[in-house]
Amino acid sequence: MDAPTGPTGTGTPKMTLLRSWVPGANDPACPFPLNNLPCGVIDTGDPRTDFCATAIGDQVLNLALLEEAGLLRPRVWRQPSATMPQGTMRTHWNGFMAMADWDAYRAALTDLLAEHGNPALRDAPDLRAQVFAPLAQAQLTWPVRIAEYTDFYAGRHHATNVGTMFRGADNALPPNWLHMPIGYNGRASSVVLSGTDIRRPWGQVKGPDEDAPRFAPSARFDLELELGAVVGRASHGPLTVDQADANIFGYVLLNDWSARDIQAWEYQPLGPFQAKATATTISPWIIPAAALGSFRVPPPVRDVPLLPHLRDTGPMFYDIDLSVTLNGHRIAATNARELSYSAAQQLAHHSSSGCPMRTGDLLGSGTISGAERAERGSLLELSWGGKTPLTLPDGTTRSFLEDGDHLALGGAARGDGYQIGFGPCEGTLLPAHDDPFKG
Amino acid sequence: MDAPTGPTGTGTPKMTLLRSWVPGANDPACPFPLNNLPCGVIDTGDPRTDFCATAIGDQVLNLALLEEAGLLRPRVWRQPSATMPQGTMRTHWNGFMAMADWDAYRAALTDLLAEHGNPALRDAPDLRAQVFAPLAQAQLTWPVRIAEYTDFYAGRHHATNVGTMFRGADNALPPNWLHMPIGYNGRASSVVLSGTDIRRPWGQVKGPDEDAPRFAPSARFDLELELGAVVGRASHGPLTVDQADANIFGYVLLNDWSARDIQAWEYQPLGPFQAKATATTISPWIIPAAALGSFRVPPPVRDVPLLPHLRDTGPMFYDIDLSVTLNGHRIAATNARELSYSAAQQLAHHSSSGCPMRTGDLLGSGTISGAERAERGSLLELSWGGKTPLTLPDGTTRSFLEDGDHLALGGAARGDGYQIGFGPCEGTLLPAHDDPFKG
Repeated sequence: MDAPTGPTGTGTPKMTLLRSWVPGANDPACPFPLNNLPCGVIDTGDPRTDFCATAIGDQVLNLALLEEAGLLRPRVWRQPSATMPQGTMRTHWNGFMAMADWDAYRAALTDLLAEHGNPALRDAPDLRAQVFAPLAQAQLTWPVRIAEYTDFYAGRHHATNVGTMFRGADNALPPNWLHMPIGYNGRASSVVLSGTDIRRPWGQVKGPDEDAPRFAPSARFDLELELGAVVGRASHGPLTVDQADANIFGYVLLNDWSARDIQAWEYQPLGPFQAKATATTISPWIIPAAALGSFRVPPPVRDVPLLPHLRDTGPMFYDIDLSVTLNGHRIAATNARELSYSAAQQLAHHSSSGCPMRTGDLLGSGTISGAERAERGSLLELSWGGKTPLTLPDGTTRSFLEDGDHLALGGAARGDGYQIGFGPCEGTLLPAHDDPFKG
Repeated sequence: MDAPTGPTGTGTPKMTLLRSWVPGANDPACPFPLNNLPCGVIDTGDPRTDFCATAIGDQVLNLALLEEAGLLRPRVWRQPSATMPQGTMRTHWNGFMAMADWDAYRAALTDLLAEHGNPALRDAPDLRAQVFAPLAQAQLTWPVRIAEYTDFYAGRHHATNVGTMFRGADNALPPNWLHMPIGYNGRASSVVLSGTDIRRPWGQVKGPDEDAPRFAPSARFDLELELGAVVGRASHGPLTVDQADANIFGYVLLNDWSARDIQAWEYQPLGPFQAKATATTISPWIIPAAALGSFRVPPPVRDVPLLPHLRDTGPMFYDIDLSVTLNGHRIAATNARELSYSAAQQLAHHSSSGCPMRTGDLLGSGTISGAERAERGSLLELSWGGKTPLTLPDGTTRSFLEDGDHLALGGAARGDGYQIGFGPCEGTLLPAHDDPFKG
């Protein structure tokens, strides 16, 4: 698919592979080449010894040890002569995101790992033995403490599909949709890490033909394929789109599990609430915005011009291939460029009322769907509300998720001979508990 | 007004004044008699020395010093032989709420301050001189770290008034309203303490006669008179109403500042977002649920029975007089018993999907309005959307808030010869900034 062209340019030229001396890093199929350097935290079993890490090739690299060894210490943003306090690279990335000079750190880390770069680590076998460990055995935990979670609705095909099903084709897009990124506040406590089992929720539901609501397990439980943006720097007051873009540290895959039957009954007039509160799964590696810089693409052509505070100022959308795999079968594939509002525009809108934004805020993009059926990022759309169930290669059909279903999202920005992978974002749906209020 | 009677009893008999030896505490006009013992934190200018305090009479009492002096140390909930770690009563009440035996602590504190109780503090003039300070000079800071903020819509007169204005009298109450407490997730970062100035927000607005939206300062900026419930204990999974009631630590006054014009344009289909994100003001003293125990009243008579998971199980509503004062003029007075869903029912519903709830979660009740015009808890209702502006005693009129307006909410549960006061919940509206995106 060719890149859509827009008023603000044609995107950034793609970079080529940055070659590294770390095993596996130069393999075109490796999700974690030197161009990536994702931000994660390794779970050691004891929160006091958990450490920030990056993945490169088939290895994870302990950044806390690298700091303690004096090889790589983050410097303070806007105060280049100062370094961050020792221990910044322990526990989570919040302190780094809030205070550190992201670009300088990334440049120094790249130099340490590059084939012809700073040899201080490459030529120190004892230190190398300490700071590297096999990626395959790494247990990941929270990369950030999530402050608050907001979910947007910035995918036009998704909004059109859902609107058509709920309100008819003539009223598919709400009148405000073309003018701002519609969103709602979600529940940060319900965000879980990839690998966490999801329990089918109970909730209040009422079918269109039923006289009264019932309390029952959700029968229309769904996934939503989204990209999540992690806000790195706090703000107090309205941000421009450029300021917002600069405050976004990175991106994760995000599955916004959704109980469509609970949502249909509850959402008027104050929006989704318990339908979205069971769980939202994110991938444990934050892919830095800097790693995606050469995959930035221009905005879509706009039906109506945006107001100045939301106007496109450059290529802030991303060419990232995305997929949904159900029980091992790929059921959908699309691309993040299908979004109509960038995370920067979402954050600018979020801050427009003066809403304070925090380091660690998570912004879901909304479901990303393409124009074709096979590009739809939710079962609601894939099965058109259950009217055209999906047939899986194993012969079973799906309108919505069944107990035991395993869902995996995938994401990769594809360059010339390399890719920026997102790592896993998966979970298994467990059956509902017995009625918690019986007897 | 007589107490409404309902299916589950007629409320708890009102207690009489508990007499204290602390000056001013037995005055019938004092908001902080021994029956109250609100939970606050005193701002010392250095977060490390801030301390948990209660107010009694015209004094504040330093609970951290009392703990250090060995007079009053919280015991661990469900583990009565264990005491909480030293320092629990510093900084905020979250640790206490999560872990301590609330009732045992309250009983011991009551005994220390009662006229004929434990003399250990009363008869120790040196200690007394250390632990007491004049309330009038106390600077209060955050009583809790707010985890997440949810706002409900549990006031029937308010929902009916707003629904009538927006959708006509025949469709005033949404169909789901009588079956569950409708709510939406708010933004915890926007909650501020009483006394904080509020800046009139900018936002995207579009009048019914306008062709396109504009970015402009909100011209319909409003208050909402609410009660806020503070969740004291975390949970993972659906709570019964009784469990939810037991997890609520206490209550605050809450003003949910609202930009009606931003809301009208943005709220379909995902609910209020930036309209509610400028600020929500809370009072700095948490009034313990235990202090309000003798003001519990039965639920309203229900039009339709609630489903089992939300069913009324006892008198969990509160007889609390509430008021709104604008520039010194009382413009509305109502009572918390006008709510149709208790905070316990709100919390039970909130947890029904499995949503994890946290210590420090804040649940706004929704605007509390009575049946009469003078009992309406928002200017939207008082001026009926601007159609019947309010005339103030100074001759000016109000449809919505004007720059410079000072708002104060008041709350008191009134017993026989005493009252449980809520303390201040106020703020002044500052003019909007110049266009943040001009030029």
